[in-house]
Amino acid sequence: MQATTITLIGAGNVATQLGIALREQGYAISQVYSPTKKSAEALAKKVNAAAITDLKKLHSNSIIYIIAVKDDAIETVAKQLHFKNQIVVHTSGTVPIDVLKKTSKNYGVLYPLQTFSKEKAVDLKTTPVCIEANNKPTSTTLQYFAKSFSGNVQQVSSGQRKTIHLAAVFACNFSNHMYAVAEGILKKDKLSLDLLQPLIEETAAKIKNNSPVKMQTGPAARGDKKTMKAHLKLIADADNKKIYQLISKGIIQTLKNDHKQS
Amino acid sequence: MQATTITLIGAGNVATQLGIALREQGYAISQVYSPTKKSAEALAKKVNAAAITDLKKLHSNSIIYIIAVKDDAIETVAKQLHFKNQIVVHTSGTVPIDVLKKTSKNYGVLYPLQTFSKEKAVDLKTTPVCIEANNKPTSTTLQYFAKSFSGNVQQVSSGQRKTIHLAAVFACNFSNHMYAVAEGILKKDKLSLDLLQPLIEETAAKIKNNSPVKMQTGPAARGDKKTMKAHLKLIADADNKKIYQLISKGIIQTLKNDHKQS
Repeated sequence: MQATTITLIGAGNVATQLGIALREQGYAISQVYSPTKKSAEALAKKVNAAAITDLKKLHSNSIIYIIAVKDDAIETVAKQLHFKNQIVVHTSGTVPIDVLKKTSKNYGVLYPLQTFSKEKAVDLKTTPVCIEANNKPTSTTLQYFAKSFSGNVQQVSSGQRKTIHLAAVFACNFSNHMYAVAEGILKKDKLSLDLLQPLIEETAAKIKNNSPVKMQTGPAARGDKKTMKAHLKLIADADNKKIYQLISKGIIQTLKNDHKQS
Repeated sequence: MQATTITLIGAGNVATQLGIALREQGYAISQVYSPTKKSAEALAKKVNAAAITDLKKLHSNSIIYIIAVKDDAIETVAKQLHFKNQIVVHTSGTVPIDVLKKTSKNYGVLYPLQTFSKEKAVDLKTTPVCIEANNKPTSTTLQYFAKSFSGNVQQVSSGQRKTIHLAAVFACNFSNHMYAVAEGILKKDKLSLDLLQPLIEETAAKIKNNSPVKMQTGPAARGDKKTMKAHLKLIADADNKKIYQLISKGIIQTLKNDHKQS
């Protein structure tokens, strides 16, 4: 039996982690494209594929072509792809599916809900993968494909994908910025963010089985105005002061609404 | 050998988790105080102690008296304590040590850096515990005491404790609010926060060995104005719109400063 052949267009964090996981699942990776030769070659080596830096050199023997490049580069790449029936997907949370409509009869989106770094291996088995396709057979193929490497495959609409991406920005990028602000505050007093690591991980783990609204603690949740006032005095940066005020207001409002509902 | 005897003043989340951990380490808990009889009795039963609802009934046979009540109740409790040499500590991140100065010759703070719920057991071994005391011998005793149940004991000043608490509000309460906002956004599209759980936990785990500034991803970090504009359109709540704008601005500024430094 011949392995299903995949082509990776892109050699960044997502392409790297996806490529490695696909190889582990027994897929054959035909080619890896990147405009940067070094990047193409680095990933090609990892997944036992050929490196190309020119999209004109793409073979047409793959079943699925995965475009995993920066959001604003997807359209440019798509314009250079002209397949018949091969499935072309991108991996973005925000780019519309239609950007691929001239690449092939069959196209879609395969959006893994995870934060990828090149260096750190990610457990794709537990990573939710959101699937969208322009027709039913493509949707079915993409679902089987995604299920081969993820235990959590979800069929979503374009609208839902946008919603998920926005929510992910809050839950991931914005909470990460809260860690960054905390690190800045600690640094001024020669303290390390390591001190807060158990607290940070427990806060993230706590909401596994509980709504974060029910898990909220701290001065705003307690309505402890004295501490909030003291904190505002302690914050040097004007924008961080505003963030403190706005989020505290948000916590108070959210708990009030939750209380009304229950 | 007789076990060291501890008294718990308070029967909330912190007192409960601390009491259970201390029992496991072989300490004897003499009494548990709470103004609410039911709470006092519930914790007293768990830690094999006597329940009291009147501070006048406190025995003086304990080595350490741990005040683990709400921040604004600490002073009221402290006013009713009159010991000679026994060590009196509170567990708050914000309340000054001096609030205890009339309770005994020896007093201090034992601030565990963790988020506690009554129901969920917390691994105190990995929880950093910040220690502060009014004199050297008390500081030494508290350090030995804390080291008996935590693998991460830190001696901090009052100023540092305030800084740590403020940083913890950002890293814990505020990131938890980001999860709550994400949940609200998803709910409107009939989606569950479970979808983001792997992403949330990975974001928290990622900063174990890396500065969150270096780990930042997403539209603001990429300078992707198109996506940010689309997101702002998608957010219904006016305050959440402001939070989106402010934190995005913060991410951009933080990355700019980091770039300058490196």
